[in-house]
Parts: sequence; C-alpha cells; structure tokens
Amino acid sequence: MQIELAENSGFCFGVKRAINIAIKTGQNHTGKVVTLGPIIHNPQMVSKLKESGIDFVDDIDQITKDMTVIIRSHGITIEEYNNLKRKRAKIVDATCPMVKKVQNYAKEFTNKGYQLIIIGEKEHPEVKGIIGHVDNNAIVIQDEYEKINLANNKKLGVIAQTTQPIERFQKIIYRLVPLCEELHIINTICGATSIRQKATKSLAQDSDVMIIIGGKNSANTTNLADICRKLGTRTYHIETAKEIQKEWFVDVEKVGLSAGASTPQWIINQVYQKIKNIDNTENDNKALS
Amino acid sequence: MQIELAENSGFCFGVKRAINIAIKTGQNHTGKVVTLGPIIHNPQMVSKLKESGIDFVDDIDQITKDMTVIIRSHGITIEEYNNLKRKRAKIVDATCPMVKKVQNYAKEFTNKGYQLIIIGEKEHPEVKGIIGHVDNNAIVIQDEYEKINLANNKKLGVIAQTTQPIERFQKIIYRLVPLCEELHIINTICGATSIRQKATKSLAQDSDVMIIIGGKNSANTTNLADICRKLGTRTYHIETAKEIQKEWFVDVEKVGLSAGASTPQWIINQVYQKIKNIDNTENDNKALS
Repeated sequence: MQIELAENSGFCFGVKRAINIAIKTGQNHTGKVVTLGPIIHNPQMVSKLKESGIDFVDDIDQITKDMTVIIRSHGITIEEYNNLKRKRAKIVDATCPMVKKVQNYAKEFTNKGYQLIIIGEKEHPEVKGIIGHVDNNAIVIQDEYEKINLANNKKLGVIAQTTQPIERFQKIIYRLVPLCEELHIINTICGATSIRQKATKSLAQDSDVMIIIGGKNSANTTNLADICRKLGTRTYHIETAKEIQKEWFVDVEKVGLSAGASTPQWIINQVYQKIKNIDNTENDNKALS
Repeated sequence: MQIELAENSGFCFGVKRAINIAIKTGQNHTGKVVTLGPIIHNPQMVSKLKESGIDFVDDIDQITKDMTVIIRSHGITIEEYNNLKRKRAKIVDATCPMVKKVQNYAKEFTNKGYQLIIIGEKEHPEVKGIIGHVDNNAIVIQDEYEKINLANNKKLGVIAQTTQPIERFQKIIYRLVPLCEELHIINTICGATSIRQKATKSLAQDSDVMIIIGGKNSANTTNLADICRKLGTRTYHIETAKEIQKEWFVDVEKVGLSAGASTPQWIINQVYQKIKNIDNTENDNKALS
C-alpha cells in the first residue's frame, strides 16, 4: 500500500512563529504566561503547551497585571488590544504577519469609502479580529450559497480569511460582480494554504482513501476534508492516530495524507507510522497464509 | 399566437445620441459630412443616412480639410484623433459618454500601475478605441475559454466593452482571481445592455421561438442570439423582415422578439407586423377550413 503526504501539510509559517514565540516567552518571563484563547486550533498542541506552563484564558477579564499575555496568530480586535493594555499585563504579539496585512487592507478599504466584504467564517477569531479593526463595519460572506444583501453599496472592497479555499473565494466574487459597480479585491489567501489545498486536491484525485489530520475545531483542516469529499474520495478527518481503524484500508492501494496549518509534525508522524504498521501486519498475514 | 418584445430592445442612449448628432450635423454643415466608419453596426440605418447625404469613410486618408467628420458612438484612439486634427477637417464627436468613461478608466488604471485587462472583442472598434488610449498596453480577453497569459502581472485593472454579456464578464473574472494578488474591477457594462440581455433571456425561457433583430455585424445583437441559443430556444438572427419565413411559426404559441442596441425602431416594427400578418392569415385559414 502506498502512503503519500500532501505538500505543505502541517504547520504554516504563522503557526510555527506563534508557537516559537509562546515557547520562548514561557522560558524568558517570570510570572504566569497565558495565551488569549487557545494558541492554535489543535487540542493536542494546546495540551503540550499547558504541560510546559503556558495555559490559555478565554476572557480578558481573567487577565491580571502580573501576567504575560500572548496574542495568538489569529490576531485580536483593537478594542481587545486596548482592554489588554488597561489590564497592564505584559503583551507579546504573535499575530501572523499575513493576518496583520489583512487587518491593514481592511482599514485601507474602509478609509477609502469601500464597503468591506470579508469572505470567511463569521465566528472565526481571525475574522472577528479583522472586523474589530473597522468598527465592525463589514459584511462577512461565509459560503457561495448565502443570500447577499449589500443594501445600496456599489463600491466593494473584498478580502478573505487567510485560510479560505480559493474556489469559495472565486465563487463568491462571481456572485458579487453583477451586484456592484466597482469591486476591488485583494487575494489575501495565504500562499501556503493555497498550495496545501491544491496538493491535497490533486492527491485525493489519485488516492483510494484520504486521511485528513488536525483539530476538529480547525477551519482550514475541515476545509481540506471538504475538498476531498467533494471529489467523491472516501475521507476521514482525525485528530490523532488513535482514531485510525484498520478496516479503512482493506483493498486500498493508495492512502493520501494531509494536515491543516495547525497540525503538529509529531501527530502527522504518528498517523503515518500507524498506517504503515497496519500495512506491514497485513503483508505479514498474507505471506503467512 | 402571442408576440412579445423584450424590454430595452433597439437603440440605446448612445446610439440614439450619435444618430441625432449625425442628422443635425448633416442639416447644419455645408460641405461633405462623413462618419469615420459606419455610424452603427446596422446596414439599413447606414443606408438611410447615406440617402440623406451622410456617407462613411473607412480610412482617415480619405478625409480632406473641407469635410466634416463625425466620430461614431464607439469612439476612436488618441492617435486617430490627432490624425484627424492634422487633416484640418471639422470634427464632431459622437462618442457615447459611457464609452468615454471606459476610456478614462483605462487611462486611470494604467497610470496607477495596473495591468489593464479589457473583456471584449479584440477587433471591435470600441475595444480598439480604448486600447488606443493606453498606448496599446492592454490584454484583451474575448471569451471564458481563452488561454490567459498575464506574464508576471499581479495587479490587474479590469474593464469591459460596454455591450458584453454580464455572465462572460463574471466567468472571466472567476478565472482571473487565482492568477493575481490584486484585482480592481469596474463594471463598465452599460445598464441598458444588461437590462436588454436579462429581459431577452427571461423571454427566451418562456417562448417557443426567438427572433433577434439587428446587424449580422453587430456584436451586441449576436450576443443576444447566443444567450437564447444557450437556453435551447429555437432562435433566428435576422436583419430585416424580409428574412422571415412563415414555416418558423408552425405550431408556435409564443414568439419572443428582441433587438440589439443598433437596431432602428422602424425595422423592429416591420418585423412585428410581418409576424402578426402571418398569424392573422393562419387564423383566417383555420376559420375557413
């Protein structure tokens, strides 16, 4: 059985950077170090950080001035930032530089009089952070089937959550074109995400089974699974190797693996190894029989 | 048999204006009055103007200083304009104000460092006129299946020939989105064209036969016929009532009519009347038998 891992699987630049910042902050700061919200959408990585003393808080009200607070890669709103400052806690900003760029584009569009359109998930922290940079004056479009109400806005500035699938971005823009007079689009989908999605799609076309590894709460991992399922390939979205069942690989010639931007390498390795072991045992059984 | 004419059939604002300018110029100017190229893409209207003394020339070299030259609604390039001036002929500019706007958007995009993309027909005088305002530095995309070569241009400014179908505009933009980082689109499709195309599509969905009236050399008329054919409705593109055959209406309950932006009202009326007469004769025959 052939097992192949899609290009660009696992941690992206922004996630790697945020985790490195968190680990270094934990080593160098006295007092309690916390992240505001889980550092990434991966429960296993969050547990691992907790073991090394970096927990997360869900609410700014839980912050006290003796704490060091790490802003995660998704970023936060200006209001949250100001609230953090008022708490007089130490702030370490690990917002992904690409997300910072998107926040700036949002401000630019708004200042130039465009109605800001964000293509992304309404409840995702990255999107909430971006909206918070333009006084919540944005229309978020989540999927291509959604009813779009633009009121009388004829001049639209469009950006995307950095981990959106490019096809969704294209399809929503297709629908926006006849609804306005001017459409200024910045493709803010991160390059690593695009490559990962493309590679996963191409691997899924060529595989009997796809295993997508990453947090069930990770939007970009869920998108990878959706891309594979849309192609009709049998697909399993798992968080860890423990979930793997050997029945999935009966009569399978090729298994494709892919992992979201928030999936640590060690989890990918464990999954790979477990599938390899199933295959070896299977081969041994065949040889014996 | 029901006969229905689509909304906004026939002369658009720009064509009406150009013809009025031509007629007035013919009445008020001594010496020869010509248009540079046929005033609109309708041979019957062009013949009619010729009868009233306004002929057209195909080439600026045919212009002499005693002539009055009318620039038709499609507009011309800056070079052509300067050549006309050098001929010292009187110039009357009947360029459609909407086309003028598109020429200005083209210049603006080019000045701001965007690679200009024009969605339209490479050989159409309007498109040639627009390109001539930006030193021919534009990529013209004619249809949604065309190979798109952007070289390394990551910042695109997109406009359309004013009579393009909105769906083609949308489909080409869909393809451009993943090829660039920034896409600034001005929807320059003229409102009257959009309404006419939409109304024609909706009428074609509801009719047994569609008769599209207008110059065979008229791009926007040909687009109307294409829209109907794509829906699977039996469609005839005719220039005058003479082409109508009564066999087209056997067992037909509803006939839809539509006409391009360059089709004169008198031709639409003649077509309507001829179909009406066929229907009346048919009813008389039925009554007699």
